[in-house]
Amino acid sequence: MIPIPKTDYPRVIIIGGGFAGVKLVKKLKDLPVQIVLFDRNNYHTFQPLLYQVATAGLEPDSIADPLRKQLEPVRNFFFRMAEVYSIDGDNNRIITEIGELDYSYLVIATGSRTNYFGNESIMQHAFPLKQIPQALDLRSHILQNFEAATITEDLMEKKSRMNIVIVGGGPTGVEVAGALGELKKSILPKDYPELDFEKMSIILLEGSPRLLGGMSDVSSQRALKYLKKFHVEVYVNTLVEDYDGHSARLSNGERINTHTLIWAAGVKGNYPEGIIPESLERDRILVDEYSRVKGYDNVFAIGDIALMKNADHRNGHPMLAPVAIQQGNHLAKNFRRLIKGQELKPFTYLDKGSMATVGRNKAVVDLPGNASLGGFPAWMIWMFIHLISIIGFRNKLVVFLNWVWNYFTYDKGTRLIIRKFIPKRLKKKELEATA
Amino acid sequence: MIPIPKTDYPRVIIIGGGFAGVKLVKKLKDLPVQIVLFDRNNYHTFQPLLYQVATAGLEPDSIADPLRKQLEPVRNFFFRMAEVYSIDGDNNRIITEIGELDYSYLVIATGSRTNYFGNESIMQHAFPLKQIPQALDLRSHILQNFEAATITEDLMEKKSRMNIVIVGGGPTGVEVAGALGELKKSILPKDYPELDFEKMSIILLEGSPRLLGGMSDVSSQRALKYLKKFHVEVYVNTLVEDYDGHSARLSNGERINTHTLIWAAGVKGNYPEGIIPESLERDRILVDEYSRVKGYDNVFAIGDIALMKNADHRNGHPMLAPVAIQQGNHLAKNFRRLIKGQELKPFTYLDKGSMATVGRNKAVVDLPGNASLGGFPAWMIWMFIHLISIIGFRNKLVVFLNWVWNYFTYDKGTRLIIRKFIPKRLKKKELEATA
Repeated sequence: MIPIPKTDYPRVIIIGGGFAGVKLVKKLKDLPVQIVLFDRNNYHTFQPLLYQVATAGLEPDSIADPLRKQLEPVRNFFFRMAEVYSIDGDNNRIITEIGELDYSYLVIATGSRTNYFGNESIMQHAFPLKQIPQALDLRSHILQNFEAATITEDLMEKKSRMNIVIVGGGPTGVEVAGALGELKKSILPKDYPELDFEKMSIILLEGSPRLLGGMSDVSSQRALKYLKKFHVEVYVNTLVEDYDGHSARLSNGERINTHTLIWAAGVKGNYPEGIIPESLERDRILVDEYSRVKGYDNVFAIGDIALMKNADHRNGHPMLAPVAIQQGNHLAKNFRRLIKGQELKPFTYLDKGSMATVGRNKAVVDLPGNASLGGFPAWMIWMFIHLISIIGFRNKLVVFLNWVWNYFTYDKGTRLIIRKFIPKRLKKKELEATA
Repeated sequence: MIPIPKTDYPRVIIIGGGFAGVKLVKKLKDLPVQIVLFDRNNYHTFQPLLYQVATAGLEPDSIADPLRKQLEPVRNFFFRMAEVYSIDGDNNRIITEIGELDYSYLVIATGSRTNYFGNESIMQHAFPLKQIPQALDLRSHILQNFEAATITEDLMEKKSRMNIVIVGGGPTGVEVAGALGELKKSILPKDYPELDFEKMSIILLEGSPRLLGGMSDVSSQRALKYLKKFHVEVYVNTLVEDYDGHSARLSNGERINTHTLIWAAGVKGNYPEGIIPESLERDRILVDEYSRVKGYDNVFAIGDIALMKNADHRNGHPMLAPVAIQQGNHLAKNFRRLIKGQELKPFTYLDKGSMATVGRNKAVVDLPGNASLGGFPAWMIWMFIHLISIIGFRNKLVVFLNWVWNYFTYDKGTRLIIRKFIPKRLKKKELEATA
């Protein structure tokens, strides 16, 4: 058993410190329960801005916040940094990498992970963008390839090292493509005056007929127009079939040489083992309108992992931060009712609209009720909403200052290669052999 | 050969983008020479604040600056991210991990690295503090041990995971010990209310009879007094003889159980191979008063790596940033004279004093001519000097804001475990075996 002090309060175990889990813990603050939060990391990640870490716009520290620090004010709160392997519903127990622990109530808020749809070659060579270490790896990888491009005299290789392919035309794909377009336009040519940036292609691939499938047609068209301004080539109705780290084969038969393929084409639920198969559907956990997992009395699921079907959302809710936050909030209220012996209330999602940014002065916003905005006003709204959503005043301030700085200087400050991963360089031994 | 455009200008190769190398490149800005700078990293590290990265006070990005960005205004400038393996003085050529390159003039500014004085066990288990990845590793390691301390019921292990030993009472050792004292006092007890911080020891070991050997007796005494205020235990005249990752054996026979031993006890020159043995002394490169390497006409060395003996400095200059900066500056002026056919001028070091900080409101400063300051005034001077010395306005601003933030909130923002390294945890397989 993991050592946690015993109390007379019921113990609520929450797995996952994402948007849903953190909101729930905060709202349970004063309830007579013992809360134990598990996460693999000791920090919460503000995923909507992860792409700015990958494209050298923000420090990782500004979009991550230590969970212990954030949740210090919560009574009877314990944090354990550990991966949860499985759930033993019969014995009300979880099994983790640091041992086992019993619960009175369990909340699964484990979010989603990258979905490669079973394509092994892509899984091996593509760069996902779901976690901070992945964003840092991608940043280093892109910059290392530019360094490598300066020292090769093979023009094909030079171009391949500069090219970047992004797969998936959802918000992440569009945002990362736009940010890379800005890097290509304003920053990289100053850093690498030796390279010919006419030769660099940024290509965004989308399998469906249009970008931003979850948004309106107007916004989709606007995003396409903006991406073209940043010299991003967009291919719709196009899939990647194979990628070996150097060359991608597309569904239209075309081949693109690139050392960098960013995979933003899909996510899937990321749940521990042991959940009864009847409660799983399309890699998510089926829950009723109270977020209770089908087939369990005292197990709940919220956020991306939860598949809640109701009259308004026959296929479940979109896997978005606002849904996760609202579900965390709502479940906390239901816990309060549960403890008071009151009747639970069903969850209803309040859709406040959706948005994506492409780059400087360019964003798209869909408001509830068919209204949509583009250009500078949408960009200002996007920035405002993201700033107020980042947890912690210090992080808000650092992100705000970085954005102001970028805006006026056309510069991004964090072009550091911190994780060393140098492909295909001469090793010392090889050099000695050729000397 | 590494591809670099050919010019009629003489080619100056500079190895190392530290204080000396960067200053030299900037000052050579308008000279009719081609400049090629080599560094293993694509960024310059502001080493004096590295300890604040290790102790969660600053983001790594705020004390590192990309070399390409910084040196963009320099004419005829080329950067190559590569390790230089050796120097072939007979053929005026360097051999690097990306190939070879010929020079007209070579400047070695490769700085220093951690010196373990041949102690293998310490080299294997101790944490050095010379580079950004090392600082990040140390930050993660300390926090991971606190996480591990919460889940062990073995009281000896708990204490060992909380204890921290710092070896070396120079500026780095004193500064890191003070910063850890602040963490222990103001931050960690809030993050880990389950742990008893009375049990945590921070121990600073110094082999000589006093701290800050390069500074005045007054400053040394003051530093000792300040460290005691931050509950750091200081042992002088004490060496570490052996360390296995869990327990350190001291020269006085005592044993200290600790999972974290920080090694700040010494540095040595870090030069490429191929320099004639007569030009080496005590792991540094012997240079004349023009920074020219003994036995070579067109090879120079500046900064920590250079051992320049003169009437005022019979054993060479201290291995400090101000010496490196002044030597870079001076060598640039001599290059100007060289190209004009004028006579070179000898280097003279202008000692502007030395300083070290211990923590909030507590620092020591020695001014030239036996004056010294302590407490709040010294702390303000220390902060001011470090702020103006950080390269780049953006970095100055970020560091300043972090310090202001820390000062008023008693908080440090960057307590993230980003590199995962979890010692002695149950593996999934082992768990299954015991289940």
